[in-house]
Amino acid sequence: MSGDTGEGTGKGGAVRDVCVIGLGLIGGSVLRAAVSSGRNAWGATASVSDADAAAADGYDAGTDVVEALRRAASSEAVVVLAVPLTAVESVLALVERHAPGCLLTDVTSVKVPVRDAARAVAPSVTFVGGHPMAGTAESSWHAAAAELFAGAAWVTTVEPDTVLAAWQEVATLAVDLGARVVPLGAGTHDETVARISHLPHLLAAVLASVGAAGGPVAAALAAGSFADGTRVAGTRPALVRAMTEGNRTALLPVLDEALGALGAARGSLASTGGLASTIDAGHKAARKLAEHRHAPTTSVRVRLSAPDARDALLAVGERGGYVTAFDGDVALAEVP
Amino acid sequence: MSGDTGEGTGKGGAVRDVCVIGLGLIGGSVLRAAVSSGRNAWGATASVSDADAAAADGYDAGTDVVEALRRAASSEAVVVLAVPLTAVESVLALVERHAPGCLLTDVTSVKVPVRDAARAVAPSVTFVGGHPMAGTAESSWHAAAAELFAGAAWVTTVEPDTVLAAWQEVATLAVDLGARVVPLGAGTHDETVARISHLPHLLAAVLASVGAAGGPVAAALAAGSFADGTRVAGTRPALVRAMTEGNRTALLPVLDEALGALGAARGSLASTGGLASTIDAGHKAARKLAEHRHAPTTSVRVRLSAPDARDALLAVGERGGYVTAFDGDVALAEVP
Repeated sequence: MSGDTGEGTGKGGAVRDVCVIGLGLIGGSVLRAAVSSGRNAWGATASVSDADAAAADGYDAGTDVVEALRRAASSEAVVVLAVPLTAVESVLALVERHAPGCLLTDVTSVKVPVRDAARAVAPSVTFVGGHPMAGTAESSWHAAAAELFAGAAWVTTVEPDTVLAAWQEVATLAVDLGARVVPLGAGTHDETVARISHLPHLLAAVLASVGAAGGPVAAALAAGSFADGTRVAGTRPALVRAMTEGNRTALLPVLDEALGALGAARGSLASTGGLASTIDAGHKAARKLAEHRHAPTTSVRVRLSAPDARDALLAVGERGGYVTAFDGDVALAEVP
Repeated sequence: MSGDTGEGTGKGGAVRDVCVIGLGLIGGSVLRAAVSSGRNAWGATASVSDADAAAADGYDAGTDVVEALRRAASSEAVVVLAVPLTAVESVLALVERHAPGCLLTDVTSVKVPVRDAARAVAPSVTFVGGHPMAGTAESSWHAAAAELFAGAAWVTTVEPDTVLAAWQEVATLAVDLGARVVPLGAGTHDETVARISHLPHLLAAVLASVGAAGGPVAAALAAGSFADGTRVAGTRPALVRAMTEGNRTALLPVLDEALGALGAARGSLASTGGLASTIDAGHKAARKLAEHRHAPTTSVRVRLSAPDARDALLAVGERGGYVTAFDGDVALAEVP
């Protein structure tokens, strides 16, 4: 347990310890980055190989998840749930039992299902959902890096029942790890990642299959556009299944949008022979997204004790902005 | 007119001069690379800016297409049609009028429509279709480079009525320019590029549109998979329209395959909640394509005067192989 720096919030201004459950790519990187940032941090995982590798690298890590959680409870640590989506419910039950009343966040790729599971399985826990938008192709401790989150977007959820002091603790951890904190509702997060992460994975899978149906000739002629469009089809299927199937509710309407647009292109090509509306719309959309990304930003301050703080935080995220730091209970944000 | 090296075929073993009509990215690169390879070469284009830029760079280039074609006729040059697909028919008519009996090839992205146009509009011309699989995003002389074709696949069509001596002239030019020559039927080419080039462009357009519908939040969260999947949506719409609309017949069934696969994913996600078959198939397909690309090759010799030469060449291309050189009338090929 640290506490001598005087920075951060909660625990009377002390920096919270960090307990990471799950030490794969994301959890391992959280443990590495937390220690690098000067925090007292430890981890536990059911994976013997990840635990051994982390311990061999000099980290406070083991396979006893219950012990790690008990230690978190006694030191008022932030607990970071970094297990695969399919293991979330069972670990939530352990948290509820061994660290009730703790401050819990997660790093999984969907937020509504995890929020609902936390409410159902771990009602004594103060939960704030999180999702760092960084790497999914690798999955072990060996791929973990303290710099993984540098400059990355890290969604932290703001819901009607979110305790803003708890939200600040989680956001401060993300900021300390180098990320830009994007405050969003869980539903907005899930719809957005369906568009910009889960749909791309499904389209890459479809494109790879249709391409491979062209046999060795297709392999011989495939160049830039095909290589780009199929790159993520090389991701481990289990990871892609977990994130897409886990986001079923938000993904279905997005899949329907894509099917509608592709079907419209098909219909237009078959009837008039033209693809102008599909291609022009895609080109304009790509330019619009690039403009959003390169838009100049304005500095905004959100006082978390203000009555409209929740709405003000959500407005930051929904306009494509992000929190970069805290000054007492004021979130300092940049908004396009 | 060159001819002192004794290499190549036709004209009693002399290397043919090259006349390039159209001096954008591909045509300009053909002119640069032909000169670099030691050939006598000139070009003409309706684009004053491309002609001026080529001349300023020291190339024999101008805007008088008719004069360039007459010169090609008198020196028995290979004429390379490098104009946009929409201009092919009108230039074919000029070739038929001013350089009848010449040896003509093209570099456009579809082969059946150009073959049919050549048969209809330029019946006196000896035509061999071609398509170097290199760059489409840029389009002016300024983007042209002699090295554009180094190591690239360059399809040269082999049809029932193809004159193999003419095919060898065109293939020799592609080899001289640094390319791997892939002999294919025009229909196989068009189906294959529909899979590995035209479908990727349409999926990128659809993905960009669905992503942009997520607004500034989508722009803020978009990372690797979305950036990869939408990269070619930045290509000039006119270029994408020309190649996709120009390949309508081959593209429609490929679009239907993609719609079927995406619809099946949607149906499975909605009914069982599972996406295993889509994701596993995509992952296997990506691995299979990578295996094709990295497969060891065997050297094969095809004597163009042999009675089964046409089938032997097509077998090379259809197995993912390519011709690397000629030894007299023997094509030296590598086949996976």
